[in-house]
Amino acid sequence: MDPIVQKAPKTSPLPTPVQLIEKTRDGVELKKDEVRALVRGLLSGELADYQMSAWLMAAYLNGLSDAEMVALTEAMLHSGEVLSMKSVRGAKIDKHSTGGVGDKVSLPLAPLVAAAGLFVPMISGRGLGHTGGTLDKLEAIPGYNTQLDKAQFEKIVSKVGCAIIGQTPRIAPADKKIYALRDVTGTVACRQLIVASILSKKLAAGLDGLVLDVKVGRGAFMVDKKSATALARSLVETSTALGTPATALLTNMDTPLGVTIGNALEVRESIEILKNEGPKDSRELTLRLGAEMLLMAGLAPSRAAAEKKLRDLLASGHALERFARMVEAQGGDPRIVDDLNRLPKAPHRSVLFAQQKGYVVDIEPRGLAEAALRLGAGRLRAEDRVEPSVGLELLVRPGDEVEKGTPLARIHARSASAARAQAELVRRSFSIARRPPQNITPLVLGTITGKGRPS
Amino acid sequence: MDPIVQKAPKTSPLPTPVQLIEKTRDGVELKKDEVRALVRGLLSGELADYQMSAWLMAAYLNGLSDAEMVALTEAMLHSGEVLSMKSVRGAKIDKHSTGGVGDKVSLPLAPLVAAAGLFVPMISGRGLGHTGGTLDKLEAIPGYNTQLDKAQFEKIVSKVGCAIIGQTPRIAPADKKIYALRDVTGTVACRQLIVASILSKKLAAGLDGLVLDVKVGRGAFMVDKKSATALARSLVETSTALGTPATALLTNMDTPLGVTIGNALEVRESIEILKNEGPKDSRELTLRLGAEMLLMAGLAPSRAAAEKKLRDLLASGHALERFARMVEAQGGDPRIVDDLNRLPKAPHRSVLFAQQKGYVVDIEPRGLAEAALRLGAGRLRAEDRVEPSVGLELLVRPGDEVEKGTPLARIHARSASAARAQAELVRRSFSIARRPPQNITPLVLGTITGKGRPS
Repeated sequence: MDPIVQKAPKTSPLPTPVQLIEKTRDGVELKKDEVRALVRGLLSGELADYQMSAWLMAAYLNGLSDAEMVALTEAMLHSGEVLSMKSVRGAKIDKHSTGGVGDKVSLPLAPLVAAAGLFVPMISGRGLGHTGGTLDKLEAIPGYNTQLDKAQFEKIVSKVGCAIIGQTPRIAPADKKIYALRDVTGTVACRQLIVASILSKKLAAGLDGLVLDVKVGRGAFMVDKKSATALARSLVETSTALGTPATALLTNMDTPLGVTIGNALEVRESIEILKNEGPKDSRELTLRLGAEMLLMAGLAPSRAAAEKKLRDLLASGHALERFARMVEAQGGDPRIVDDLNRLPKAPHRSVLFAQQKGYVVDIEPRGLAEAALRLGAGRLRAEDRVEPSVGLELLVRPGDEVEKGTPLARIHARSASAARAQAELVRRSFSIARRPPQNITPLVLGTITGKGRPS
Repeated sequence: MDPIVQKAPKTSPLPTPVQLIEKTRDGVELKKDEVRALVRGLLSGELADYQMSAWLMAAYLNGLSDAEMVALTEAMLHSGEVLSMKSVRGAKIDKHSTGGVGDKVSLPLAPLVAAAGLFVPMISGRGLGHTGGTLDKLEAIPGYNTQLDKAQFEKIVSKVGCAIIGQTPRIAPADKKIYALRDVTGTVACRQLIVASILSKKLAAGLDGLVLDVKVGRGAFMVDKKSATALARSLVETSTALGTPATALLTNMDTPLGVTIGNALEVRESIEILKNEGPKDSRELTLRLGAEMLLMAGLAPSRAAAEKKLRDLLASGHALERFARMVEAQGGDPRIVDDLNRLPKAPHRSVLFAQQKGYVVDIEPRGLAEAALRLGAGRLRAEDRVEPSVGLELLVRPGDEVEKGTPLARIHARSASAARAQAELVRRSFSIARRPPQNITPLVLGTITGKGRPS
């Protein structure tokens, strides 16, 4: 007789781990307490890693219902500490981006909206792949400490208006475990799991509102608008269902955001934005996201009024000053805002020139991200160290007219040979044609509000 | 920036574990060497358990192609020792059943066909659920040793013509690991994985042919004829593709096979069959399967001639004598064939009686299997010990006419209270109606030969 036979019926009140897996495998919706049992079981060890990964694959292939997605987010959120931030007297609004090449918006945005009266308790991540995450960028500032405990974090948010720290082991431990499994089992790219992962960490800061920047395009996780819209809607609806109002912008990631890719270089660009300078696209996106945050907190009567207020704070230097205070409060050297030379500098720099006359019709972000990664700006494995000084500066933007010999990009590298090794990949990322590009995709492609309808 | 970003492209010649998972997840067929890399990776530790279980769920939900199924079977087979059995001078033909309630056919079949000139090197399993496997049944015979090494196994097959042993740790270790994962991740009921699991163990005996008994019905793993036919065809085609001709019978498992459920009780019925007695259905199935084995080895010109030859061997006592020789060679007490009282006997026996007059229209196998399991005849966990003496005897068969008070079944139990606890479940398994049953399903529902067409 073969061992493959029916098991005796189980009579426990909650399904066993195998029964939970079988339900999702068969497309049967899990109840809220069943989802909670799954997450608790993983942390207690009652449900083994290999069982969770089978469940994750079933969820990936069959999808989860909206109710399951909300329940999973909630269970993961409450697997750890949820901050109350009682000493913070005002609206706590955060922003989250799904990630794109050259996206450094968190750095200027947090102090900008703090200067406008918001409180931004931002718990951020390190990057994997291309240019590292917000934490890696901040750590390019000499002395900046992203590993604060919750009391220090709350104190800085309360006094300065913003702080940006890394996820502590006490925040959403279930997400940490589940993400590690997804990363090695081909189950990362699942909308409902992405939503639960993002929100279980973000909502742990005890937010009153959340603005989401969902990137769409070649340089983003979601390549097409349809899947990005679905992700944005799920994020907004799940956050709202869990009591935190949310709005999402769909923004273009077909070309890099701003003109720098690499940690210290992106800090420099962030400071330029805070000086009301810097490239138009990253500055405008900072303002757009900031305006949404102000609107959410009721600190402006309209989007236009909100943007006006924020522009004034850039122009007056108040936003920059707030950034310096945040840097100082987190142990960093605030003098960088006046003296960019205090930021780490790469030992070698070299410039690439246009080989023909014409118009820049395209700048492909993935090749540039890959080049920055190989220069040392990002990490392939969680344990890799990033090199803060290296990266790429873009010296032209799509639509620009160039002559033969016009500088296109500057490579910041550990050595001349390291720069040379990436030159071809960088060069190929620029497309130059005789005619100017027909259409340049707008930066903001849509807005999704709490009602779940794009506007 | 979120850690959810694209990974840098990998350039290794064989896909990484994650890439193998992603292919099956996306329904992309794995090449033969990729399937081999999966199995080897699992054994070497390069591919973790949680990765294998994600792959198994993807295989469960997306299915595997025939080529993948063959490659998986081959890789699992060659993960361990494949016996050559060079000292055996004749056709080595084995039988495998997918398992059903009361199926003890291996016990009379192996010595019967050995008496006809075949060699049967049977590597068998322990059961999980209801009444245990072939090994548990044989171990009800005092002294019988199922844990022989390959030299002892080959010697007995060569001299006696048949031996039945347990899977050694050297046989298909990949199956052992994969089956353990499937068992706890809801991925058992997948046709292609079932085929690879069965054949990787069976073909390790170095067979010249294999006859499969694929059970269909309420008491079987495959409840409907369609899925049973698909399984049978896959088994036959995969075995044939790997060089071992195979034939499958689809046989009815809507009611228990024979009249006993429980280890020592089934040994007793097996001996009765070998004495040309015993219940018609289990005796006839033994003859049908035996005839297929003889035909496969060319030891009979036709099915009718093969069956005639086998009936003669039952009538002459040669088959029984062969059984006694096998038992003795494996350390068991051969006197059991003449004295059934030497088999373990349960301390308590009680009889259930019909509560009304009429016809037995149905005997439901799952309730009886469950009752036998609870009496101690089977195991719920691999580490459970079975009690050889306990079980059920059916005293009527479907179609039988009964009076009020006619004995229906005898419960063999550890105690009166243990018997009482199962009485209701056993009673409910018998349906008695005023009219005789309209149709009694035939025992053999179809044959699938090497060409893959049911006949």
